[in-house]
Amino acid sequence: MIKVPAVGVSPRPSCIVLGAGGFLGTNLCRWLVASGARVRAFGRRFLFPRELEGADLFQGDFSDPLALAAAIENHDVVFHLVHATTPQLANQDMVGDVQRSIVSSLVLLDISRRLGVKRIVFVSSGGVVYGPAELIPTPETAPTDPISAYGVSKLAIEKYLALYEHLHGLDYRVLRVANPFGPFQLPHKNQGIVAALISRALNDESIDIWGDGTVVRDYIFVGDVIAALAAAATDQSGTRIFNIGTGQGRSLREVIAAIERQLGQTVQIEWKPARPVDVPTSVMAVDRAREVLGWVPKTSFEEGLRETIAWWQRRS
Amino acid sequence: MIKVPAVGVSPRPSCIVLGAGGFLGTNLCRWLVASGARVRAFGRRFLFPRELEGADLFQGDFSDPLALAAAIENHDVVFHLVHATTPQLANQDMVGDVQRSIVSSLVLLDISRRLGVKRIVFVSSGGVVYGPAELIPTPETAPTDPISAYGVSKLAIEKYLALYEHLHGLDYRVLRVANPFGPFQLPHKNQGIVAALISRALNDESIDIWGDGTVVRDYIFVGDVIAALAAAATDQSGTRIFNIGTGQGRSLREVIAAIERQLGQTVQIEWKPARPVDVPTSVMAVDRAREVLGWVPKTSFEEGLRETIAWWQRRS
Repeated sequence: MIKVPAVGVSPRPSCIVLGAGGFLGTNLCRWLVASGARVRAFGRRFLFPRELEGADLFQGDFSDPLALAAAIENHDVVFHLVHATTPQLANQDMVGDVQRSIVSSLVLLDISRRLGVKRIVFVSSGGVVYGPAELIPTPETAPTDPISAYGVSKLAIEKYLALYEHLHGLDYRVLRVANPFGPFQLPHKNQGIVAALISRALNDESIDIWGDGTVVRDYIFVGDVIAALAAAATDQSGTRIFNIGTGQGRSLREVIAAIERQLGQTVQIEWKPARPVDVPTSVMAVDRAREVLGWVPKTSFEEGLRETIAWWQRRS
Repeated sequence: MIKVPAVGVSPRPSCIVLGAGGFLGTNLCRWLVASGARVRAFGRRFLFPRELEGADLFQGDFSDPLALAAAIENHDVVFHLVHATTPQLANQDMVGDVQRSIVSSLVLLDISRRLGVKRIVFVSSGGVVYGPAELIPTPETAPTDPISAYGVSKLAIEKYLALYEHLHGLDYRVLRVANPFGPFQLPHKNQGIVAALISRALNDESIDIWGDGTVVRDYIFVGDVIAALAAAATDQSGTRIFNIGTGQGRSLREVIAAIERQLGQTVQIEWKPARPVDVPTSVMAVDRAREVLGWVPKTSFEEGLRETIAWWQRRS
């Protein structure tokens, strides 16, 4: 069992999760509650409100500074999990993405500094910040040349976090998370491919897939991501940025085959042309997280898939 | 003599210089006019309007999309030289800096794409994008970890330029220029230290200097920067980012001593505490520009200083 985050002076650590209504947020809040932390769940809407029992639900918009300030007050650790948009939509409205992602995060930093927040843990995206990487698996030191506006804004937020620490001493950690999957992930605007494949298959529906299925991703079970978030919240090292993935690449065709194998049925695919925002291969080198955080991914892909399918089967 | 930019199909290349009213802009417009190019000078205000004879002056604000679009229409090459703020001010208002620098540049990219601009040449800042570099002189491949909001926004604009080329084929070059000095530079909001030192000395005034004078910078004469801009406008290589400097570091104390030597008088200094936005040392490695653009800085520091002092003496 992973230890409870011990940042702060209060007898029980107090955390706020921004973007608590979504996939990672729901999982993180549940884990924090179970570990005895005081947790405020902040979100525009909650996909699974009943699953957040024990957390203090606070409905608000990330881009509303007053709501954000009211929610953050008296919390030590801020988990910033907000994805204001998707890679596809960010490219269509880059200015809007700057406003919702970068500007809102700058406001968050200013609020956090004024309210004496002790640490911000930011979920960045390993799949987009590097762009088409030369080195696979890709280490944290690789060049960051995103081919999506989503990647540029994630990267800019990382840089502003470093700047706020430099100027104002606001502590932070960045997790560049690979492709997470697991319970509470819903297929949404071309994201969450594992969830989409399972749910469509269970409903005997077909699914659109962009590209020819050869894109390789680093799929990581959500339980392992949550463990990394908890480790990042208490880390006392001088390191700030960590890749979080399995270090193993898997093509989309392999993912489809694995799901079909476990379900014992075929998934109907409608193949569509590739999108320019997708890099061909994205796999994280995770040596740094292992060495510094003492974190390793513990769930095999097949095992994670079983747990995810079981969750979907309970829902239907 | 450097060749006239030959981008575009018109018999005379048509260029627009954004930020034409300032130091680099004035020098660039004068050079372009002298080389026979058709030049539009776009700026909020022009420090030296009479020196821009032969250029088509277009008064407008960079953050006004309609003015920008009207100005850019029918131009092949856009020189983006706008500094919407200073490093010091950007840190005090990061959100404002995002709006004026990043968002306005995104609007520029969109306008340029729609109007069929053939190339954007963007002046980034070698002194801020790298942050406190481990490797001196610093190559283009060094990590980019700015310690000022100004540096983060320059870097974000570089990334969006790459993204626009990837998504929409909009061609560009980035010059990470070191510390330029020369005629038409006015001391302004703690920038342009060479100009400030010379003008104060000639007026027998004292000057405030932050830090103890040990900060090392790569001072490059403006004529060499303009040559690099011209070379970048016509470059046909696959390279996009170039450091532009001399490769030689010089402490502020050395600069002061050189100016005192040439003027034959002492400069009165009021020493102030160092600012957190200043990296201790910034020197550009310029091998890439030499190899790819065939560009080398030709003016020695002493020679550039003589020309700059002569310009100030003609003004007073």
